[in-house]
Amino acid sequence: MRVTTIHAPGDIRLEEQPRPQLELPTDAVIKVVAACVCGSDLWPYRNADEVPEPRPIGHEVVGVVEEVGSAVRSFAPGDFVVVPFCHSDNSCPHCRAGIHSACVNGGMTAGGQAEYARVTQAEGTLVKTDGMPDPEQVPSLLALSDVMPTGWHAAVSARVRPGATVAVVGDGAVGLCGVLAARELGAERIIALSRHAPRQALAREYGATDVVAERGKEATAAVRELTDGVGADAVLECVGNGPAMRTAFSIARPGAMVGFVGVPHDVAPPMGKMFGHNVGLAGGMAPVRRYLPDLLERVLTGAIDPGRVFDLELPLDDVAEAYRAMDERRAIKVLLRP
Amino acid sequence: MRVTTIHAPGDIRLEEQPRPQLELPTDAVIKVVAACVCGSDLWPYRNADEVPEPRPIGHEVVGVVEEVGSAVRSFAPGDFVVVPFCHSDNSCPHCRAGIHSACVNGGMTAGGQAEYARVTQAEGTLVKTDGMPDPEQVPSLLALSDVMPTGWHAAVSARVRPGATVAVVGDGAVGLCGVLAARELGAERIIALSRHAPRQALAREYGATDVVAERGKEATAAVRELTDGVGADAVLECVGNGPAMRTAFSIARPGAMVGFVGVPHDVAPPMGKMFGHNVGLAGGMAPVRRYLPDLLERVLTGAIDPGRVFDLELPLDDVAEAYRAMDERRAIKVLLRP
Repeated sequence: MRVTTIHAPGDIRLEEQPRPQLELPTDAVIKVVAACVCGSDLWPYRNADEVPEPRPIGHEVVGVVEEVGSAVRSFAPGDFVVVPFCHSDNSCPHCRAGIHSACVNGGMTAGGQAEYARVTQAEGTLVKTDGMPDPEQVPSLLALSDVMPTGWHAAVSARVRPGATVAVVGDGAVGLCGVLAARELGAERIIALSRHAPRQALAREYGATDVVAERGKEATAAVRELTDGVGADAVLECVGNGPAMRTAFSIARPGAMVGFVGVPHDVAPPMGKMFGHNVGLAGGMAPVRRYLPDLLERVLTGAIDPGRVFDLELPLDDVAEAYRAMDERRAIKVLLRP
Repeated sequence: MRVTTIHAPGDIRLEEQPRPQLELPTDAVIKVVAACVCGSDLWPYRNADEVPEPRPIGHEVVGVVEEVGSAVRSFAPGDFVVVPFCHSDNSCPHCRAGIHSACVNGGMTAGGQAEYARVTQAEGTLVKTDGMPDPEQVPSLLALSDVMPTGWHAAVSARVRPGATVAVVGDGAVGLCGVLAARELGAERIIALSRHAPRQALAREYGATDVVAERGKEATAAVRELTDGVGADAVLECVGNGPAMRTAFSIARPGAMVGFVGVPHDVAPPMGKMFGHNVGLAGGMAPVRRYLPDLLERVLTGAIDPGRVFDLELPLDDVAEAYRAMDERRAIKVLLRP
């Protein structure tokens, strides 16, 4: 089968490899219907993470169950499933506490930009739809494998409450999903920090009431002015680098929480501000499985349409172009079809 | 009047200075009945904070109102009051959000280890008792000016819930009050990290169900064993240095919050753990005024007795010995009487 591999920064290839097999009774093998490129895939692509040796890449998948191990009871070949990027047994102490991303038996989807993907702990990991979804639902279902629950997790971690003023740092797909999450969680005012017109437009459609195009100190000043000098009740940090984290803290009001979901790269929280102003920091790798039943319902009822973050669709054969388009910010997020 | 000043690390003096005066209509002057030495007073004493020039020190006070400004309506000379270490108008947006320590008109008690102290924003800052308290209540009332609300804030920031397993790092007066707070907030299991017998004993009397005397990696292993490998639901970091923060994160279960209230000194939160395990960090300078009405009620009804953290009482004239006793850990916390 064809599978996407990264060989070095900027070097994305599609290779022929054997189809993944069931290795454990708890495994499933999924025939990929749609996959996509994650902002976190760009870290190694941009040389911010090391690539010591070539490896399969991609962790966002929806597809059809091809084969299940003997311990998998709730899924059968032919089921359409959402595959969370992190696998979990949904029964260990951490899963029971809602932190499926720290499951003691968990793992990650690796090589999801491919024709087939192996899923571990399939019984606890997968969520299926009733029958095959409409084709136009596939992008939003694919968004449930990572980007939408990750934006949701940022909002939950930042303790977005009904009536709150929320600021979202980062206008990538996660940030945009964070805007959508804040709206669903009842935020009254949502300030999106974005300077790219198409992303600003989608942010507004997702519920942003204000858009701040400035960066750095100018962004801080703009948010302060919008909030009468108080700052935001909750801040979603959806990037993961130092400048974004600094901006996030600078616009947080005293007592606010910064919810962070971008893989941290050279991030040092400002302890003086955290202490003096009681601004907290919470979040991390999203426990996708925890939010999936609720978010699936919202997608199927049409309450949310996170699939609109995919503004480019390419055949899997063009995966290298998909990375280029996202790297150059020509696309917010690229959907791939094997 | 006599006032305690710090001239350099280790150099605590009692000096004669003019009695503080009303400077603004919102001020009050308090005749100090009891004051004490704070763990944070030890930072400059131990050369961890700079002392660029001699300055008055001390910020924990109970006393009797001597004089009030014309804008102060609710207090009159003769009232017995608790003076929160941070002053606040109790009406600005940050106060209304419960973060009185970030009051836009706020300030700090400076020179509280003295015969008299000036309090700004007295109307919003002070809380009085009905009549003069019994002398034996004075230590617990004094504890309400900082140390007890600070331990409480650690527990609230760590989101201690009924039934929770809570770990407390730091066996100073704040840590011990954190144990007491965790008990009052319904924690089922409270693990106190302490290796000093008298503090261990008080921790147990305050509600600790387990005491871990180890430090560093051994402490982590001990807490993990006590929690079946899971870690604590909530961790109170009541020290403020790097080793304590590392220990706090190492014993936090995935999804836990670390509540921190020690002034941070060389603290760098472990972003990898925070992200990978979803361990959050919140807290800071305690909004004492927010918790005071509730805590005052608990003291007056005898539900809590935070004054027991004072295991040494000295006349103000012996303030230099008070610092030495705390620095050498001969005393948990020293109460001073002018």
